[in-house]
Amino acid sequence: MRASYHEALSSVVDDLVTMTRKVEAAVDEATQALLSADLASAEKVIGEDADLDRMHDDLESRCFTLLARQAPVAGELRTVVAALRMVADLARMGDLAAHVAKIARMRYPREAVPESMRSNFQRMSKLANEMVELAGRTLAERNVLDAEKMADHDEEIDDLRTLQFRVMLDDSWSHGVEAAVDCALLGRYYERIADHAVLMGSRVIYLVTGLHPEGDHWTIA
Amino acid sequence: MRASYHEALSSVVDDLVTMTRKVEAAVDEATQALLSADLASAEKVIGEDADLDRMHDDLESRCFTLLARQAPVAGELRTVVAALRMVADLARMGDLAAHVAKIARMRYPREAVPESMRSNFQRMSKLANEMVELAGRTLAERNVLDAEKMADHDEEIDDLRTLQFRVMLDDSWSHGVEAAVDCALLGRYYERIADHAVLMGSRVIYLVTGLHPEGDHWTIA
Repeated sequence: MRASYHEALSSVVDDLVTMTRKVEAAVDEATQALLSADLASAEKVIGEDADLDRMHDDLESRCFTLLARQAPVAGELRTVVAALRMVADLARMGDLAAHVAKIARMRYPREAVPESMRSNFQRMSKLANEMVELAGRTLAERNVLDAEKMADHDEEIDDLRTLQFRVMLDDSWSHGVEAAVDCALLGRYYERIADHAVLMGSRVIYLVTGLHPEGDHWTIA
Repeated sequence: MRASYHEALSSVVDDLVTMTRKVEAAVDEATQALLSADLASAEKVIGEDADLDRMHDDLESRCFTLLARQAPVAGELRTVVAALRMVADLARMGDLAAHVAKIARMRYPREAVPESMRSNFQRMSKLANEMVELAGRTLAERNVLDAEKMADHDEEIDDLRTLQFRVMLDDSWSHGVEAAVDCALLGRYYERIADHAVLMGSRVIYLVTGLHPEGDHWTIA
């Protein structure tokens, strides 16, 4: 019984790593859809979001079963609790990737992002994607340092978003209301993907150390 | 020990109900800030968001303690798991109310929402507020019917948001890019507040029945 319990727990973590890779692929493909007006990619991300939701439901239900049947304690309890939150983060990142893809699809065959904003979104999406990848690696390797590195990426994303608003709200903006509304929402979606990656990182730190980031210090939960 | 455990569990639920009321007040005050260009209200919501975050951290840590020390099962385990997710929903709703208040503050002394969009946002914010109130009542009274009623409100919010886009992207829109960007984000924030209220409702259903809404059917988790 104990052996199969440990197997169940480690298969939850393995599947979380797999789910993170799928989310990373979805974010990547959504960006491809967005920046290359690629309708097939957009449809793929939107269609496959249901798979991520199913993975979420399956993993969540396995975590509940572990809690109910095994009453885990200490590090194992932390793993289940962290897994429950990570699976929610991942499902949300998948939703956000689908939101990006839907804007790409809505504007097809035009590109939603005007040329003057292109390099900003290229950089922002690259950072967001790296953060998801970093979150997966952090989880797979229990590497707390990687998790802390994410904060730097997150700061750059915030700066890029501030810059987006500056460009959109400048008198020289010539792309009209629709492109501005699209860019405002797209910036928000990538920012939220990055936020969830940061949260995943903090869940790994909790899982490994039992410490919770709270403001600028760490407390035992 | 068992008595104090049950006390600890029911005080978590009581405090969740209290937190829901505080979030409801924050959403209400943020709307006041937004629709009346009321700077004092905006500052209040932004300043008090830290209190909600503290409540979140406190409640979350009490749930962890219950899981670790008491290894609850059946209905009690469901209560703790549902509480963990509700407290995350509530903290997020508080953040979103602060986002609304920040837009109000940024545009002060002007109003962020143009006159032609005013009645839409009045209705949208009223519905969102009612949904938070409904979520709190559902939790306090374990009233599953209330939770299901929320779906109707949520649908109306989606319709209002679609209408917002129609108005903003119409050639007759004369309020410029800034107002459109503000309205796009504000609509998103209220929509997300409503989404979290719906999620809270589904967590109450899970807590009471052990059933999870999954697509359009219910499964045992």
